[in-house]
Amino acid sequence: MSNEKLTPISDLGEFGLIERLSARFTNHHASTLKGIGDDAAVLDVTGKQTVVTTDLLAEGVHFDLSYVPLKHLGYKAVVVNLSDIYAMNAKPKQILVSMALPGKFTVEAADELYEGIAHACAVYGVDIVGGDTTTSKSGLVISVTAIGEALPEELIYRNTAQVGDLICVSGDLGAAYLGLQILEREKMVWETDPSAEPEIESDYLVKRQLKPEARKDIIDFLGEIMLRPTSMMDLSDGLSSDILHICKQSNVGCLIDEARVPISEDAYNLAIKFNMDPITCALSGGEDYELLFTINPDDESKLIGEESITIIGEITAADQGKTLKTKGGNFHAIKAQGWKHF
Amino acid sequence: MSNEKLTPISDLGEFGLIERLSARFTNHHASTLKGIGDDAAVLDVTGKQTVVTTDLLAEGVHFDLSYVPLKHLGYKAVVVNLSDIYAMNAKPKQILVSMALPGKFTVEAADELYEGIAHACAVYGVDIVGGDTTTSKSGLVISVTAIGEALPEELIYRNTAQVGDLICVSGDLGAAYLGLQILEREKMVWETDPSAEPEIESDYLVKRQLKPEARKDIIDFLGEIMLRPTSMMDLSDGLSSDILHICKQSNVGCLIDEARVPISEDAYNLAIKFNMDPITCALSGGEDYELLFTINPDDESKLIGEESITIIGEITAADQGKTLKTKGGNFHAIKAQGWKHF
Repeated sequence: MSNEKLTPISDLGEFGLIERLSARFTNHHASTLKGIGDDAAVLDVTGKQTVVTTDLLAEGVHFDLSYVPLKHLGYKAVVVNLSDIYAMNAKPKQILVSMALPGKFTVEAADELYEGIAHACAVYGVDIVGGDTTTSKSGLVISVTAIGEALPEELIYRNTAQVGDLICVSGDLGAAYLGLQILEREKMVWETDPSAEPEIESDYLVKRQLKPEARKDIIDFLGEIMLRPTSMMDLSDGLSSDILHICKQSNVGCLIDEARVPISEDAYNLAIKFNMDPITCALSGGEDYELLFTINPDDESKLIGEESITIIGEITAADQGKTLKTKGGNFHAIKAQGWKHF
Repeated sequence: MSNEKLTPISDLGEFGLIERLSARFTNHHASTLKGIGDDAAVLDVTGKQTVVTTDLLAEGVHFDLSYVPLKHLGYKAVVVNLSDIYAMNAKPKQILVSMALPGKFTVEAADELYEGIAHACAVYGVDIVGGDTTTSKSGLVISVTAIGEALPEELIYRNTAQVGDLICVSGDLGAAYLGLQILEREKMVWETDPSAEPEIESDYLVKRQLKPEARKDIIDFLGEIMLRPTSMMDLSDGLSSDILHICKQSNVGCLIDEARVPISEDAYNLAIKFNMDPITCALSGGEDYELLFTINPDDESKLIGEESITIIGEITAADQGKTLKTKGGNFHAIKAQGWKHF
């Protein structure tokens, strides 16, 4: 953007900015009766249940604009919410996006952010039906609310895991966290010597951090093979924190086998290079947005040969505790590691 | 709170804080199938349409914590969203609340904010079904999403005003803006001389700024007398901005009679004391959260003797423009004054 003419947002004013930003959105869903432009959006979800979730991303806490491109940030702000809708086994349909933009923000910067938002809406087929755009005296804040639909019998909650169920995760874990380590190191290098050539060991890891995807493909696949998880959630805080939610809400314990936790080769190698324990990165890293779910053991055969889903342990009785079996054969209690923000 | 022991939020951690804050909420609506505690909330609105809106309040832009009590702030953050739902002639049922709390925030401060949120939920009978609580590197940010329900035929939009319709407002205008002037002056006085006695000319005006109400009562009343507005919205930016939305979306003009715009005695007197034009305060002040609506002239008789609703003008053909008739008998074009934030 360096050669372009940049426009202060005050040149457009509130209504001009809203008109400009909303011009790029068209509605796709029959259930979106009225989108942007009135006091509220109107949705028709006759016969289905509505699923709704919200997430707030704040500059300096969830992202660092010195290395996060605005387009990716807009994309990610949407995806992390859609991930919550998929984790209920529902289909996302609409989003609302509120933003507090710093005074230094230009119209072009707002455009770029919205381009990422629009791209996520296109990829996942959701309508943007409302929002609020204001200024911020300090950092950029993005708050997204996502709305989805499901038949009552389709919904999958966290409180329905049964003793003996197998614990599964999609994809691989720890990649987003290790991607963040690369970006943080590059920022430090750049601050010390702006002429240094950037060294990105793994595009895969960086992409997992900057532009995560919601696992719609996994939800679709489970539907195709008619495997209904007994409980499900998405991994945002890290496996060791998130599995405790299922255990607490289902009133069960768990036994997770460290050796089976899926870690990509890139993540493994980078953790070693950074003198980190790969398994700790995978268990506590967070932001992977993979699905964590439990299945009835009778369904195990349906997953044979399916590389995108890994069975990592099983649900035990509550009095067995929440336990990690290490590669060395030791047993440790699993402790929540989530939320380093406060 | 000065004598109490204050608790850093880090003592509780994310999950502890969420548990503490959500403990005060119980769900009332049959349509709230699942509230806080899973990836997303689940709602059942069978046979009705869903109405959804969101608003974001940022410290230093929308509020100043040096004189806004946290309890009132929580209350107001909810009310401004409910006002949007009522302005669709729908009934609010659920809200989601996301907050970015500054690092200096204590658990007791978060409690106070939530007390205001809970009070608004109790007064208006809405369930809190989700949210996100995180930290902020800078100011406090509150983002609320409200969800309501209505039968399709109940909804009232902005784009259905007809030429000849009468323009109505509820309550009186400019009070919230003048309340803000009192608070801003008191802040300046206090900064100059902390020992000075505060001088509050009107509790009414200050309350309109700090603790506004959504006009549920007006919606209920219009239902009782079976008066269905032809178009409706709430007044958040100020009459002179907001009427333009109805004109633009309905493709009509308007003629507003300055002499009929309702201004409270307190607002009038304070404007004069502050050397401000009372009518300018009423037209451009904003944050009144009164209802602006149009009615068929045949319905005028239903409003006889109703002091809480005032007819202030009429809808004209688009080519007549958007016009204000002053007390002196002159005619001026109405210009948007909204959004001083950028």
